[in-house]
Amino acid sequence: MTDTHRQDDSGRRVAIPSVLARYFPILDWGRRYSSGALSDDLTAAVIVTIMLIPQSLAYALLAGLPAEMGLYASILPLVAYAIFGTSRALAVGPVAVVSLMTAAAVGNLTLPGSADYIAAAITLAFLSGLFLLAMGLFRLGFVANFLSHPVISGFITASGLIIAASQIRHVIGVEASGHNLYEIVTSLFTALPQANMATAAVGVPAIAFLFWVRRGLKPLLMRLGVQPRSAEFLAKAGPVFAVAVTTAAVWAFGLVERGVAIVGSVPQGLPPLSMPSFSLELWAALIGSAGLISIIGFVESISVAQTLAAKKRQRIAPDQELIGLGASNLASAFSGGYPVTGGFARSVVNFDAGARTPAAGAFTAIGIALATLFLTPLLFYLPKATLAATIIVAVLSLVDFSILKRTWIYSKADFASVAVTIVTTLGFGVEAGVSLGVALSIGLFLFKTSRPHMAVVGLVEGTEHFRNVKRHTVVTNPQVLSLRVDENLYFANARFLEERVYDMVAANPALKHVVLMCSAVNEIDASALESLEAINQQLSEAGVALHLSEVKGPVMDRLKRTSFPEHLSGRIFLSQYQAARFLDEETAETGDIPAQPAGRIS
Amino acid sequence: MTDTHRQDDSGRRVAIPSVLARYFPILDWGRRYSSGALSDDLTAAVIVTIMLIPQSLAYALLAGLPAEMGLYASILPLVAYAIFGTSRALAVGPVAVVSLMTAAAVGNLTLPGSADYIAAAITLAFLSGLFLLAMGLFRLGFVANFLSHPVISGFITASGLIIAASQIRHVIGVEASGHNLYEIVTSLFTALPQANMATAAVGVPAIAFLFWVRRGLKPLLMRLGVQPRSAEFLAKAGPVFAVAVTTAAVWAFGLVERGVAIVGSVPQGLPPLSMPSFSLELWAALIGSAGLISIIGFVESISVAQTLAAKKRQRIAPDQELIGLGASNLASAFSGGYPVTGGFARSVVNFDAGARTPAAGAFTAIGIALATLFLTPLLFYLPKATLAATIIVAVLSLVDFSILKRTWIYSKADFASVAVTIVTTLGFGVEAGVSLGVALSIGLFLFKTSRPHMAVVGLVEGTEHFRNVKRHTVVTNPQVLSLRVDENLYFANARFLEERVYDMVAANPALKHVVLMCSAVNEIDASALESLEAINQQLSEAGVALHLSEVKGPVMDRLKRTSFPEHLSGRIFLSQYQAARFLDEETAETGDIPAQPAGRIS
Repeated sequence: MTDTHRQDDSGRRVAIPSVLARYFPILDWGRRYSSGALSDDLTAAVIVTIMLIPQSLAYALLAGLPAEMGLYASILPLVAYAIFGTSRALAVGPVAVVSLMTAAAVGNLTLPGSADYIAAAITLAFLSGLFLLAMGLFRLGFVANFLSHPVISGFITASGLIIAASQIRHVIGVEASGHNLYEIVTSLFTALPQANMATAAVGVPAIAFLFWVRRGLKPLLMRLGVQPRSAEFLAKAGPVFAVAVTTAAVWAFGLVERGVAIVGSVPQGLPPLSMPSFSLELWAALIGSAGLISIIGFVESISVAQTLAAKKRQRIAPDQELIGLGASNLASAFSGGYPVTGGFARSVVNFDAGARTPAAGAFTAIGIALATLFLTPLLFYLPKATLAATIIVAVLSLVDFSILKRTWIYSKADFASVAVTIVTTLGFGVEAGVSLGVALSIGLFLFKTSRPHMAVVGLVEGTEHFRNVKRHTVVTNPQVLSLRVDENLYFANARFLEERVYDMVAANPALKHVVLMCSAVNEIDASALESLEAINQQLSEAGVALHLSEVKGPVMDRLKRTSFPEHLSGRIFLSQYQAARFLDEETAETGDIPAQPAGRIS
Repeated sequence: MTDTHRQDDSGRRVAIPSVLARYFPILDWGRRYSSGALSDDLTAAVIVTIMLIPQSLAYALLAGLPAEMGLYASILPLVAYAIFGTSRALAVGPVAVVSLMTAAAVGNLTLPGSADYIAAAITLAFLSGLFLLAMGLFRLGFVANFLSHPVISGFITASGLIIAASQIRHVIGVEASGHNLYEIVTSLFTALPQANMATAAVGVPAIAFLFWVRRGLKPLLMRLGVQPRSAEFLAKAGPVFAVAVTTAAVWAFGLVERGVAIVGSVPQGLPPLSMPSFSLELWAALIGSAGLISIIGFVESISVAQTLAAKKRQRIAPDQELIGLGASNLASAFSGGYPVTGGFARSVVNFDAGARTPAAGAFTAIGIALATLFLTPLLFYLPKATLAATIIVAVLSLVDFSILKRTWIYSKADFASVAVTIVTTLGFGVEAGVSLGVALSIGLFLFKTSRPHMAVVGLVEGTEHFRNVKRHTVVTNPQVLSLRVDENLYFANARFLEERVYDMVAANPALKHVVLMCSAVNEIDASALESLEAINQQLSEAGVALHLSEVKGPVMDRLKRTSFPEHLSGRIFLSQYQAARFLDEETAETGDIPAQPAGRIS
């Protein structure tokens, strides 16, 4: 917990009750809010608002929802996050992956655009909010750590491809759909002859323009002498420019009659009060997806929040972030929105634009609210092809196959996780991809720990340090086997340890002592304890003493509560060096007793 | 692999092709079979046969199957195991837990005793056989290691209670049933007034007699001067005596008219050729149970086989055991039996009776075959109450709550696994209990590794050994933080590591060097590598160098394939002692450069 004592203006220490400060971070940063921060936050809010208007409409379209729901999801959720969130730069709202997952979850139940579909999306936001809130209150944020970087990378890349592919139909004006990349692409090829030329004439140039804006506009502006920050700003405003130009073109050239699909009438006014459905049947159908959306959204959000916080030596509180995102989703559910989270691209823009506190998010909410009040009539002729182009260009920047090469070089297990996540996501959808990726990465980790590396070690001469006899030039004693176990001892590898020790002892008839060097053993569970007892028993029947060395404090504390140390045929040494010295003396004393000629062939 | 070169009679070395010898262990022990082994195996087979006749009938009853199926499951499966198995003492056949699981799996589909029920049980044996065989061929025996000792103990204890409770109805002659202990017990209480007195007059004394045989008969016989081994044998024959006496009583006193349920006519003759069903619908309904039965059966079998093999310094090959048990189950499916495995109690008896090779099992099969040919008419009046009494007395010996106390003292995580397994098995059945127990024990292990113990270490004076500053009197350098990470670094704890290091660095402004002592780090996966890169980056921006020490060979090999060692701001030391000596010199040299008065308040 951070220290919540602050000096007030008169220099006295004022304490905020720590529970309040923990759950309402706004009480902390709000008290010290300065006019400098206000000006920076306002600037950032203007830039993010301009970026968010086309994005929120586009992502609502991606989710299969009316465009205004994207706007609604960008107002109250941002205010809720500003109150409860701990990141100074996170920009909450509709994002691509969560919109795709919403479409997949709700699309299983009913037809896009229907009243039931909208109700289900609102309910999904509500369940997501409850889920996140519960995880936060029970401090279960660590669960997100089980999504490994490779799984996240693979999932994001595959989702990007699916989203881009699913949007091409809007760009060329055809009907096409599918549950996986293959279905989407084949359905696009089948539909290609029916492509609407007027739509393509809007959509294809829009894509080209947006790609150019992303890559070439900023360098061009800077070469023309524009300040870097302004150039950056103008580049981010590219989608707004595309929206304005294409909307004007559709209106001016009467392209609606030529078959160009437009957003149409968007209700003017602030978000309505909405209620989630309380049908248990609907809850049962959505709860699994809500859980997955919550965790994926949380991981996306916390990753960018932590990256940005680290740049300014700020800390974020993962469990409080869950509460912040939970509150955002509940706010979304009660104001006509759908599931939201912290978006990667917008948060980076927010940060670069100078956002200093969560107030920037609240100001963005005001900007979007003003847009719903005054700008919606202007959106009537906005072609869906432009929104699709915005999405395609945004998500393709997330596609990154280099993770495959990097993990291939570094670790085949990580490579397998990425590859399976990508292939499964592309072939069977987002939920299957993430679930299988997580299960596989955990399974591979468990598999590795179930067959631990064990090294016979010897003394590095001139030091007190012991290393693997196969890798280093070391000194060993033929009557002593020093075995370093490179893993926690637990149920999955307890039997493996037994077998390895028995094999080694059977292969070395001269052996009198076995030392298990436990420097890498952080845990001995009840199953492993039984195995150690069995090893001790078996070895002592074979006339071999079992010793332990370098047992860590927490492990030793537990062993002391059992009868194992008493029954141990050998001793427990603080260091491997002490064990070796003691046993060298021991074996030197007794070494002469068995009459073994020096030239004996063993 | 064991060495398969043997000397033949003329002294020449004869090689058995190693693949053949691996998959047919009989080729190995069969070649050296002696008349001494024959005589020992025959003796053991006689004793096990006498024990197996009532048990096989009783367990078939427990599984809801006709009594003869227990006999059939005790003939060809034993021959198959003798060919393919590697344990010298394992007694394969029907066992209590697998019979209970068969009843649960098949009872979900249809009514006990019906033709469909029998076909489903045969199919279950077939699927189990395929599952075990596949696991063996793909060398997946390690999967069984994920059932921890606590989960197995809890599961066995709870199953014992459920089985005993479910059999009481036969002892008092009432109809009662239920899916969990609570339902079974309440249903028994409801039915109590309808208890059949004649049945109880057979069943209750049978239980009392069998308990007395188990506890008191052997000591009594020994006091009377009987040899210990004969006394042991007579005590094991107790159930046969109970069967004989109660069968005679039912016949002599006409108890069938008084309502005593009997086994009735058992077909006389060798097992029929049976075929499993190939209905995909049935397979889909049974495949999950078949997998669980296979794994549970394998664990029960391998535990006893390993215990007995260790007593004679023999080794068993777990993957070949899977093949042996797989072959047994397939044999059972094709000869009118149901799922089998290696039983605990019978194997111990087999071992104690002197069985030296798997041939003892084949001889037992001959004994049971003779029984099906000639003894079945004698079983007509055998009361079900006696069989139930046999089961109750056998399974209650498996009930052992002491594991709760032992794990409570040693490890709360292990205690939680036992407790949850027991409660879930009692409340929701065997499959739910095992599944939840395994999931919980794996989850708790992952949770522990996701929040690793980390110790700040210092030098134990007069040695080169580093230990926790909180537990030992050690020497440290205020400008150097030596942090021992007591866990593999992988995705689940990568972020935790980052946070801890940042926190520690933030709390020590005097710090110039951080050394991560990696003696307990057996794995750094791609996610953890990214975290290390981030830590390196963050610390170097703060003017703190990151070093590693005692990185293990396999971990270092992988790190060398990346750019991490180049980008590392500090160095990688072979030992923590070298790191400390180098950094002591480093900080002594540079220590004077920043003008910091000695009395500075930090």
